[in-house]
Amino acid sequence: MSSPALPIPLRGIIPPMVTPLSGRDSLDVAGAERLVDHLLAGGVHGIFILGTTGEAPSLSYRLRRELISQVCRQVAGRVPVLVGVTDTSYAESVQLATYSADAGAQAVVLSAPYYFPAGQPELLEYIQDIAVDLPLPVFLYNMPTHTKITFDPQTVQAALQIPNVVGLKDSSAQMIYFHKIRAICAERPDFSLLVGPEELLGESVLFGAHGGVCGGANLFPKLYVDLYDAAVAQDIEKVLELHTQVIRIGRTIYSVGQHGSAFIKGLKCALSCVGVCDDYMAEPFQRFRPEHRERIEGYLAELGTKN
Amino acid sequence: MSSPALPIPLRGIIPPMVTPLSGRDSLDVAGAERLVDHLLAGGVHGIFILGTTGEAPSLSYRLRRELISQVCRQVAGRVPVLVGVTDTSYAESVQLATYSADAGAQAVVLSAPYYFPAGQPELLEYIQDIAVDLPLPVFLYNMPTHTKITFDPQTVQAALQIPNVVGLKDSSAQMIYFHKIRAICAERPDFSLLVGPEELLGESVLFGAHGGVCGGANLFPKLYVDLYDAAVAQDIEKVLELHTQVIRIGRTIYSVGQHGSAFIKGLKCALSCVGVCDDYMAEPFQRFRPEHRERIEGYLAELGTKN
Amino acid sequence: MSSPALPIPLRGIIPPMVTPLSGRDSLDVAGAERLVDHLLAGGVHGIFILGTTGEAPSLSYRLRRELISQVCRQVAGRVPVLVGVTDTSYAESVQLATYSADAGAQAVVLSAPYYFPAGQPELLEYIQDIAVDLPLPVFLYNMPTHTKITFDPQTVQAALQIPNVVGLKDSSAQMIYFHKIRAICAERPDFSLLVGPEELLGESVLFGAHGGVCGGANLFPKLYVDLYDAAVAQDIEKVLELHTQVIRIGRTIYSVGQHGSAFIKGLKCALSCVGVCDDYMAEPFQRFRPEHRERIEGYLAELGTKN
Amino acid sequence: MSSPALPIPLRGIIPPMVTPLSGRDSLDVAGAERLVDHLLAGGVHGIFILGTTGEAPSLSYRLRRELISQVCRQVAGRVPVLVGVTDTSYAESVQLATYSADAGAQAVVLSAPYYFPAGQPELLEYIQDIAVDLPLPVFLYNMPTHTKITFDPQTVQAALQIPNVVGLKDSSAQMIYFHKIRAICAERPDFSLLVGPEELLGESVLFGAHGGVCGGANLFPKLYVDLYDAAVAQDIEKVLELHTQVIRIGRTIYSVGQHGSAFIKGLKCALSCVGVCDDYMAEPFQRFRPEHRERIEGYLAELGTKN
Repeated sequence: MSSPALPIPLRGIIPPMVTPLSGRDSLDVAGAERLVDHLLAGGVHGIFILGTTGEAPSLSYRLRRELISQVCRQVAGRVPVLVGVTDTSYAESVQLATYSADAGAQAVVLSAPYYFPAGQPELLEYIQDIAVDLPLPVFLYNMPTHTKITFDPQTVQAALQIPNVVGLKDSSAQMIYFHKIRAICAERPDFSLLVGPEELLGESVLFGAHGGVCGGANLFPKLYVDLYDAAVAQDIEKVLELHTQVIRIGRTIYSVGQHGSAFIKGLKCALSCVGVCDDYMAEPFQRFRPEHRERIEGYLAELGTKN
Repeated sequence: MSSPALPIPLRGIIPPMVTPLSGRDSLDVAGAERLVDHLLAGGVHGIFILGTTGEAPSLSYRLRRELISQVCRQVAGRVPVLVGVTDTSYAESVQLATYSADAGAQAVVLSAPYYFPAGQPELLEYIQDIAVDLPLPVFLYNMPTHTKITFDPQTVQAALQIPNVVGLKDSSAQMIYFHKIRAICAERPDFSLLVGPEELLGESVLFGAHGGVCGGANLFPKLYVDLYDAAVAQDIEKVLELHTQVIRIGRTIYSVGQHGSAFIKGLKCALSCVGVCDDYMAEPFQRFRPEHRERIEGYLAELGTKN
Repeated sequence: MSSPALPIPLRGIIPPMVTPLSGRDSLDVAGAERLVDHLLAGGVHGIFILGTTGEAPSLSYRLRRELISQVCRQVAGRVPVLVGVTDTSYAESVQLATYSADAGAQAVVLSAPYYFPAGQPELLEYIQDIAVDLPLPVFLYNMPTHTKITFDPQTVQAALQIPNVVGLKDSSAQMIYFHKIRAICAERPDFSLLVGPEELLGESVLFGAHGGVCGGANLFPKLYVDLYDAAVAQDIEKVLELHTQVIRIGRTIYSVGQHGSAFIKGLKCALSCVGVCDDYMAEPFQRFRPEHRERIEGYLAELGTKN
Repeated sequence: MSSPALPIPLRGIIPPMVTPLSGRDSLDVAGAERLVDHLLAGGVHGIFILGTTGEAPSLSYRLRRELISQVCRQVAGRVPVLVGVTDTSYAESVQLATYSADAGAQAVVLSAPYYFPAGQPELLEYIQDIAVDLPLPVFLYNMPTHTKITFDPQTVQAALQIPNVVGLKDSSAQMIYFHKIRAICAERPDFSLLVGPEELLGESVLFGAHGGVCGGANLFPKLYVDLYDAAVAQDIEKVLELHTQVIRIGRTIYSVGQHGSAFIKGLKCALSCVGVCDDYMAEPFQRFRPEHRERIEGYLAELGTKN
């Protein structure tokens, strides 16, 4: 399959797609298909599979490959497909990236190996080495809460010298860090700076981000696309109005559970409530019980007419 | 292959074997063989492969399986072989455990899935679920610095009800936690409480631990076996003397590097210096450069006659 | 002295004034006077003394009282004076607040007692109790990096019911938290939400903050006032231009030192370089040595013509 | 008053005395007197007032001075009195130390200034400076959970050169750290290494500590003195028996509350139950409510006959 070119720099809303599951090691094939259709219908600018929201580290490699193949086949080049290949094992990352390239994906997304705590020089050397072995353009993925390490500004600065590193997705939720990185990246206009947390999409795009990897766009893709467009157009009133809706989603749908899993559980439960896909969660998580699902349904009813 | 029975409770020194590598995805086969011989000659009571010291998360599954096969074949039931099967993916953990059982291993060691931060109820449910699917006795592995989650005392208490959970390896280095866990475990005399950090071996065994998973035992197996024996015998003078040597190793061999990797790098470098195996490190780490290696050689010369 | 009324809600730039010192326990009286003049000339909307930037916890109570008296006398009601009364001791906080009221200050700023880690119910009860005993309007001060505790959203929501709690200064640098707090505070229009980190001033004001407590405003008060005005006016181009200057200050003046003290040391050194006040630092910090001072001078030369 | 000499090195059980209070800013004078008598009757080797367990940072300076005077007068040189002078303000620390010397105390205990996060060079310079200005021998106090900074081994090593720094109280609960510090301190035989957490008293003394600053010794002074003596005598069976009682206290008396304050609240409540002193807590904490007090009473009944 010949892959269409990746827009340089990549801009817009690239949802981190949830991975619909129908059991412990089985993909919800029909759900995944409906979800991709739902995203494309919402006008998204790319699809990022096998990220944190996609529960990638919890999935078997077999299932990951199945998902890559299915999504690439279905999307068929209409938007870029980015594949998360973050792994604690160098060899497994390279294998998954090679598989992704063969399947027709446009780019890979790579965070730090997340078991061992590394120093910045070790992290940089890792990126420099593996970039050579990855057959697709690479987006770095700053996700310190899960990987225990930040891509420090000087590490990002050095990584800008690696030709096939084409962007950074910052999920640190640290806007001071974001502004520093943006200043550093200004020297490479083809480099795409994307922001993870959807609550920060508006301000990030106003202040120079190229787009967002918003989990909520699985549910309400058009809302995030509209917010992105409003920020690009510097239409502040519109940004504030849509941003307020995003914050409301965070204070409702993502706030039902008690633990760190609340965000993904809420999102997957909501997608199940609206008929997109199954809410089966990969271990160590479990889908919401009925009383929690009812709260999600209630919130969706409140939110629904507006999105 | 029929596996010999696992001693209940497991006692003694069970070194977390380093994984000798000769390249990015290739096992140093001869080095691994020499290392196993070296450990057995030192009198260890078991061998734990594919733990943190074994760089397991950094290795490909293929290489992990190769190591499991080789070590089980070579040990041939002389001591129990424990295999680390901690993984972010439930399915991959089960597959590796099944492979280990088939290869003749005696037990598996399992920590928490370490990408997503889970709550204690989620962690407990995970352990309860997966224990059923693991075909070997299970040692829990408390390693919060790397997994971001502690097995809280009430979670351990609940896990004591799971029949094939037969022990806990505590690598938290938190002795107050250790004492609480020991009080809890007292109700199940077949349950083995092992301690990770070798600097805490002496006091842990004096205060009720059944043994230690000491990284330094890769290098000096007899030292740690002697320290264990002295603690079991409550020979305090001997404990203090050997403990002082352990602390000296920590302040020399493990203190050459600057980052969190200093311990494993120093250990592997020292094993290379004494001719046991290669010092190739799995990414994201790199072997010591010559000037650091020279410092390790110097320290070994100082330490060597005593161990 | 009769105090002029505090604007409700308080809006604008309220610099956290550095405390000019001429020795270990002596105020740089002339420097403090020049600094107040410099701030007022820059158009600031209030002055916050004895905050973190003011090194308050490092000062003796005697010196704190001297500063309160001098600043209140000099400002003479032209802008509100806010006094930091955060303390580990309830009694000392109340005494300092009483002194501030007598000296003519308009409000006090109060964070959590910062030695003992408290739970949220304990924090809320503390705020409810002490607010009754404080004779001035109270701004809560969210500063978790230094106090080890966050004012959780539900604690802020409960604190909104306390009549003389009139605002919150958020120095967490967590914009997701900020957006949640803003949504909560929307129910009390007289409540002032101020942001600490100057790198976040632009976006905070665009998204609903009433103003900023910007350390850099000690040096360049007009820059921050202009940035605030541009954000209120939704003049995005102007916001981005001035924000870029703020980020540049952070990457130069505040980045000379190696430790957490780099920000205050850099700021005080720069104020000394431009002739405003002495750069003596309260222990445990020390003023920059000559080579660091030269770097600050160089940065000021680069920045200076623009601010 | 002429102070008796401080034993060099200081050895034994030096309880961190709770501060009996009868109201927000009033000392429970009679309770404090009974508590001192109780401690001395239990055979303690010193009394440490105004530490963490003494809620020192939460008390007014006036009340602290009142306590210093009363305790020094009552103890009258029978055992050394150590006074906590840790403060965020250098000047206040020195003033309190001067007051303590005048009152007849034998030593002061000093941790890091705990509001601002300092670097190790800053911490060392602070210690070097202030030691000159403190009129009594100084014990350093490693308490990173509350002060946010550890006395790193190299900082301790440098501090050993300061003549009037005569010991270190380690409350980090990190036994690996303890063993490293002990190795470092071996070069200065007059230097006293004391351990904070009572759960670690047994092993610490066995491995070279000179004694313990055990909070539980407020309640059961003889238990901790006996445990210390058993450890000095290397009577392991006795150590284990008494250690088990200490762990049981931790799992009962200190485990009633939900927050970090559980230890001090439980201790003060228990002292009130047995008639020693009031259980009034300094803000931000509050004494236990009746249902929690009943649980403490129940635990005391279970424990009581044994201690």
